[in-house]
Amino acid sequence: MSEPLALSLAAKAAALDTADELAPLRDRFTLDDTVYLDGNSLGALPRGVPARVADVVQREWGELRIRSWQESGWWTAPERIGDRIAPLVGAAPGQIVVGDSTSVNVFKALVGAVRMARASAPDGGRDEIVVDATTFPTDGYIAESAARMTGCALRPVAPADVPRAVGPRTAAVLLNHVDYRTGRLHDLPGLTAAVHAAGAYAVWDLCHSAGALPVGLDAHGVDLAVGCTYKFLNGGPGSPAYLYVRRDLQPRFDSPLPGWNSHMDPFGMRSDYEAAPGAVRGRVGTPDILSTLALEAALDVWEGVTIEAVRAKSLALTDFFLECVAAYVPEGRVEVLTPATHAERGSQVALRCSDAGKIMARLIDKGVVGDYRAPDTLRFGFTPLYVGYADTERAARALADEL
Amino acid sequence: MSEPLALSLAAKAAALDTADELAPLRDRFTLDDTVYLDGNSLGALPRGVPARVADVVQREWGELRIRSWQESGWWTAPERIGDRIAPLVGAAPGQIVVGDSTSVNVFKALVGAVRMARASAPDGGRDEIVVDATTFPTDGYIAESAARMTGCALRPVAPADVPRAVGPRTAAVLLNHVDYRTGRLHDLPGLTAAVHAAGAYAVWDLCHSAGALPVGLDAHGVDLAVGCTYKFLNGGPGSPAYLYVRRDLQPRFDSPLPGWNSHMDPFGMRSDYEAAPGAVRGRVGTPDILSTLALEAALDVWEGVTIEAVRAKSLALTDFFLECVAAYVPEGRVEVLTPATHAERGSQVALRCSDAGKIMARLIDKGVVGDYRAPDTLRFGFTPLYVGYADTERAARALADEL
Repeated sequence: MSEPLALSLAAKAAALDTADELAPLRDRFTLDDTVYLDGNSLGALPRGVPARVADVVQREWGELRIRSWQESGWWTAPERIGDRIAPLVGAAPGQIVVGDSTSVNVFKALVGAVRMARASAPDGGRDEIVVDATTFPTDGYIAESAARMTGCALRPVAPADVPRAVGPRTAAVLLNHVDYRTGRLHDLPGLTAAVHAAGAYAVWDLCHSAGALPVGLDAHGVDLAVGCTYKFLNGGPGSPAYLYVRRDLQPRFDSPLPGWNSHMDPFGMRSDYEAAPGAVRGRVGTPDILSTLALEAALDVWEGVTIEAVRAKSLALTDFFLECVAAYVPEGRVEVLTPATHAERGSQVALRCSDAGKIMARLIDKGVVGDYRAPDTLRFGFTPLYVGYADTERAARALADEL
Repeated sequence: MSEPLALSLAAKAAALDTADELAPLRDRFTLDDTVYLDGNSLGALPRGVPARVADVVQREWGELRIRSWQESGWWTAPERIGDRIAPLVGAAPGQIVVGDSTSVNVFKALVGAVRMARASAPDGGRDEIVVDATTFPTDGYIAESAARMTGCALRPVAPADVPRAVGPRTAAVLLNHVDYRTGRLHDLPGLTAAVHAAGAYAVWDLCHSAGALPVGLDAHGVDLAVGCTYKFLNGGPGSPAYLYVRRDLQPRFDSPLPGWNSHMDPFGMRSDYEAAPGAVRGRVGTPDILSTLALEAALDVWEGVTIEAVRAKSLALTDFFLECVAAYVPEGRVEVLTPATHAERGSQVALRCSDAGKIMARLIDKGVVGDYRAPDTLRFGFTPLYVGYADTERAARALADEL
């Protein structure tokens, strides 16, 4: 790249950072000089989390012990924290419960959706699960198991082809809101409507969109949704996932994992199962309290922040990164996998080059942390709560140096 | 009770505490003046846990961030910690993996067992799951779902009747090693042999035995087992459960929850599922690292401790508690539900009285913490690592005062 060009983009970055109303939010996280563009894999540590976790361990567990299940609100944490996530994904309270991994929640949601579809069509005919052919692998593996265990066929379909693929045999469709590899944002309102038009149920995986852009679960009539909380929600490594079941569907949600935590009277110790009403029906076993309450503290960083402002900055950051990459990186050296159109872009930029693994290792050594997805993809995730424009320019410059 | 009697039992307690070689282990926990007899529900906090959790949060997550999945050993924690639990339940390494809740692991184990039974009898006929009729409810609910999803009938049978109940239709049998309500220890070697004689697979729930008494999984040829880690293993609230799959069965273990963590090449991002070899096959999604690594630190309290010594003290403690209750509590006021015979006793004493709920609330107010199980049971759990004989005598005396 030319010296004047770099100076000019650096100056632009400085101006953008100065004008950025979200810039002060960075202080809500523990960060150093690293340019951290891997918040789409593991979000940075919010400052309030260490003290809260210490209190949970030392006082709530160490001193109150068993009493904390009631006195410290452990028992109701899954639904309480679900209600904290709800506004970020456009859901009214009482529809989200936190717990288990994303994979386990995909299983609950898909089997639940197939059962709903069949209950609506008791004469049969709903014997197919459609799954995003470009999905993060675990969703596909679990969908295959859900299909096998419900006697369905599994049909992988590219998201854009879903409207043509769904039909009277389709019971449920599992889609990713944002593609984990390319960063492509799929048309949640349109695809959900197409699934509904076929009389099927739409299950959305929000792992790469929740906390990065508006989802609008209620507004768009999504049936069920799952997501993780350790990416743009910064809940910590392996923090619990969540399950959304739309309110009017909850009485018909028939979970394949009916553990005692989803019983309407869990301490009645009844041998017969009777599902609790509401989102609680999506719980299974005892929640992992340390990880769950770390997530709750992590959600404090959203105080006073709107998801619309986050989305605007996210697009500005990825636009600017693409501008810097175009300016710095020799033409043809990388292929941009992420759509240029805002309506089709999540909060990451994916670049393809044959030596991506080696390049990313060298970038990380230089303090620019993205990640590598085999065989040839560089991923750069942009978390608007703590990534700035100067970070973005520096990352593009470091990348160009390595290339 | 009479004053001399109490003095005499208090003196006996003091002598027993003095002679107790495990007594110094109490210093490995954070405890106060409370007599904590609820370690069969939530184990006390081991002293090493707070510093370890703080390090995981602040350094491993806060500073190393995504690098910790490799550099801090997060990725391999489930199988590494499984190998730490293994000697406590009589398992050679490579057969236990930590993760998910007990309920979710019951589902994996039971469906896996039914599939094994059918693979061995391809002509059909294995269409029944037998479940302990006195089980902790969640095992029964999940067994019902496993039966429904594999096309089996579910048959509740009292453990003692299992040898007569199993037959050519039985695919799998789910049993509790120690009954959560009464504290009765079931005959794991004998019942496992009876299940095998019928050509079925034995799945054991070790929630109330692991860490309290020798289990001998390998020695007795158990097929699959599950257990929680927050009771006698002191892993913390909702710490992850574990799954044991006997080594020779692992190649045939076909999990109903085949998440990407159980793939033989998880970072290959392959769309086709190929199960990993070994215990890792029991993993599903991303493990909850804070809860998982708190458990790992909690297991340090077992350094230099044998499960045989723990068992000997456990029996001595429950014997002594029963002796004190017999001496202090007016005859007929409570009914002892826990067997007198050592071979049939776990590490808790359960007493029945009609006003159990009220009595336990008053005991807790006086600093003697056990728990209440509806409708009429007082439970007192004895964790030999931190409960002493004077605690035991004090608990019985406080109970007699309330009664």
